[in-house]
Amino acid sequence: MADNKIPYKIYLEENEMPKAWYNLRADMKNKPAPLLNPGTGKPLTKEELTPVFCDELVDQELDNDTPFVEIPEEIRGFYKMYRPSPLVRAYCLEEKLQTPAKIYYKFEGNNTSGSHKLNSAIAQAYYAKKQGLKGVTTETGAGQWGTALSMACAYLGLDLKVFMVKVSYEQKPFRREVMRTYGASVVPSPSETTEIGKKILAEHPGTTGSLGCAISEAVEVATKNPGYRYVLGSVLNQVLLHQSVIGLETKAALDKYGIHPDMIIGCAGGGSNLGGLIAPFMGEKLRGEADYRIIAVEPASCPSFTRGKYAYDFCDTGMICPLAKMYTLGSSFIPSANHAGGLRFHGMSSILSQLYADGYMEAVSVEQTEVFEAAEQFARVEGILPAPESSHAIRVAINEALKCRETGEEKTIVFGLTGTGYFDLVAYEKYNNGEMTDEIPTDEQIAESLAKLPKVEA
Amino acid sequence: MADNKIPYKIYLEENEMPKAWYNLRADMKNKPAPLLNPGTGKPLTKEELTPVFCDELVDQELDNDTPFVEIPEEIRGFYKMYRPSPLVRAYCLEEKLQTPAKIYYKFEGNNTSGSHKLNSAIAQAYYAKKQGLKGVTTETGAGQWGTALSMACAYLGLDLKVFMVKVSYEQKPFRREVMRTYGASVVPSPSETTEIGKKILAEHPGTTGSLGCAISEAVEVATKNPGYRYVLGSVLNQVLLHQSVIGLETKAALDKYGIHPDMIIGCAGGGSNLGGLIAPFMGEKLRGEADYRIIAVEPASCPSFTRGKYAYDFCDTGMICPLAKMYTLGSSFIPSANHAGGLRFHGMSSILSQLYADGYMEAVSVEQTEVFEAAEQFARVEGILPAPESSHAIRVAINEALKCRETGEEKTIVFGLTGTGYFDLVAYEKYNNGEMTDEIPTDEQIAESLAKLPKVEA
Repeated sequence: MADNKIPYKIYLEENEMPKAWYNLRADMKNKPAPLLNPGTGKPLTKEELTPVFCDELVDQELDNDTPFVEIPEEIRGFYKMYRPSPLVRAYCLEEKLQTPAKIYYKFEGNNTSGSHKLNSAIAQAYYAKKQGLKGVTTETGAGQWGTALSMACAYLGLDLKVFMVKVSYEQKPFRREVMRTYGASVVPSPSETTEIGKKILAEHPGTTGSLGCAISEAVEVATKNPGYRYVLGSVLNQVLLHQSVIGLETKAALDKYGIHPDMIIGCAGGGSNLGGLIAPFMGEKLRGEADYRIIAVEPASCPSFTRGKYAYDFCDTGMICPLAKMYTLGSSFIPSANHAGGLRFHGMSSILSQLYADGYMEAVSVEQTEVFEAAEQFARVEGILPAPESSHAIRVAINEALKCRETGEEKTIVFGLTGTGYFDLVAYEKYNNGEMTDEIPTDEQIAESLAKLPKVEA
Repeated sequence: MADNKIPYKIYLEENEMPKAWYNLRADMKNKPAPLLNPGTGKPLTKEELTPVFCDELVDQELDNDTPFVEIPEEIRGFYKMYRPSPLVRAYCLEEKLQTPAKIYYKFEGNNTSGSHKLNSAIAQAYYAKKQGLKGVTTETGAGQWGTALSMACAYLGLDLKVFMVKVSYEQKPFRREVMRTYGASVVPSPSETTEIGKKILAEHPGTTGSLGCAISEAVEVATKNPGYRYVLGSVLNQVLLHQSVIGLETKAALDKYGIHPDMIIGCAGGGSNLGGLIAPFMGEKLRGEADYRIIAVEPASCPSFTRGKYAYDFCDTGMICPLAKMYTLGSSFIPSANHAGGLRFHGMSSILSQLYADGYMEAVSVEQTEVFEAAEQFARVEGILPAPESSHAIRVAINEALKCRETGEEKTIVFGLTGTGYFDLVAYEKYNNGEMTDEIPTDEQIAESLAKLPKVEA
């Protein structure tokens, strides 16, 4: 069964781990569009951003030119506690599918946060600590980001307040207790504790919340309390920079065995995992050194790439955040509460949006019942119970492997297994009981939220 | 901070992974006492055991002489999906404790079952499959064993029925869904589906169950249904044999860097993890080749080593199982429902019991609030949220490291981190809310259940 030369799991040695993050923007001819001040319509300056974000993170956010950013020694030490993550050869899945394709996945779930989010959480907490701040605020959807940040803050002794999307807060009570064990305070969003939360609740009583709402609340608290800043787990350029550690490790592991992937597949919500995973591969593609198919997989219930518009939009529902140019469903778009797991942000990383607009990558949307089918199949042969988010990538990886079975092509598929589903058992229970449904927004729903896009000069 | 030569995590290469399990009994001068037939009082023969257990597992159970048992190729393949597990140097914990001690832990939680139980689950399922059986039955307490076995059975296509201790079934609904996702059927125990379950419910209405009850039910179903056998996740000699992979990997990793541990610490319920972790070290000790302090840590609420009696006893509450000579609190002993997590079996592995009786190891009991204190401290600096079971070992490892701070001794401590606490959040919530208490059995309680020990010639 097993190709003798390639182990089931490729682990890098400590001295092979990346010493610098890779800034994909440096190799982009068309840079991602800058964040705009919603009041003036002008690009945001460092001075405008530092009341919200840590100083050094603002520099990273705005830096479109430096290709490599050194990973501080302290962060590299923390990384060594749970990284390198394994690049796994899915021998058992290949055999089950009877495919000639070679399937690899980069597994980011082997840490208590259960996902790749920890890679950026520790970086952002580190810069906050370095700046002498008391604490940070954030939002969380499925809870992975909040958990990751609570771990990072506990490690560094920073205070943390998490606004958790209400539907996840209710579906995932245990996530709350993990965050509390790490010392964070957790508030369901929208809440009565902020001005914007009160406003949203008044306008939409009974709303189950959205990442956009939670962001608004977290930003409000950060900017109103001295010694606090806001941190975000996805979408932003700085986050993709930190997450490049995933792709750099993946590439180093593949290179070690002389493996050239034909396609790289990742799930896409705000773009943090996908942007990190593909970074060095996309870099080669941008520089004309190599070619890869790069596929973003998003939920059919929140299809920003495949059904959204490439335009400037607010990053939050409360419309207090900067404007970002991105594929968006409109900042008032809220996916069905029936949609399990994360990947529920209305927009998409500006970097990935630009790359998609320029034709450097593909995007596909999948429905959640077929996603859970893939998750179950994967779990039973590969052992790992995957997060619903990650299972979007599994679904498409399996589809591509099955195509290879038809054509006989021995393609090499790499996908990102971003995390584990241990806190998604309410969704799995629904699936196990045959009660899961697909709820896809109508064209009218999307048109309605897109109609509210801010008017900005292109 | 970090000693440059020792990485944070030591991973063996695939070709360094054990090819054979180590049978500790081969090096014991005083062999563990044999299982007895409760009817005749005579040692059980292979013929008597094969209606309950798979043939090859019976051979392993009875084999006190063969030092090494080859790990079948198929099992080694499955091991490669989630093993080797890392041996982690707890640099961050050491720094937090300001101790000169060097602390290592063998982390068995990086698989979906969340614990070391998978090591024996796949072995037992493999032999059942090889024998052409339709399926197996088992019991589970905290749910780790049931989850592990459901993963193994899903992988091999075996049917599985799990009797889950009712208190855990209720505290851990998500465990049930993981097992169901892997295709197992899960019944809370005691249940009305078996004769013994009905009897126990009639005698103790409202009981929250015990491992002993669940074992009785699972054995009944296995022996009444053709093509089924019973499998057990701890206590038995065969289980300790399979779990020796933990200790063998640990020793290989330590040897690779020339590290000689001063003490090995593990939590002890039925003894599967501890017996596996210490196996090769104990072997050296028995052969007079090296010396180590070996410490078993058990919960004060279920203290078989420290307050039990070394005697023949039933392995189950229903008194239908064989008699084993072990440290026991009596088969009718049921720990307080207030005790969180596993380690709630009334007895202890016969192998470990004999070694303890012969003075080759120490035992200590700890209370659960101090265990959760250690768990929280560990989680915050080392990242991993530990299982309550594993946290018993953490507690004593921290205590020993703090003693080193007093004395200035640079001792090397190795402990077993058997699993993660992702399904123990009800208990963590209790701790976070300051509602956790210690409930320790009175001398009268223990005397009462010990009074019911079967009368057997020594």
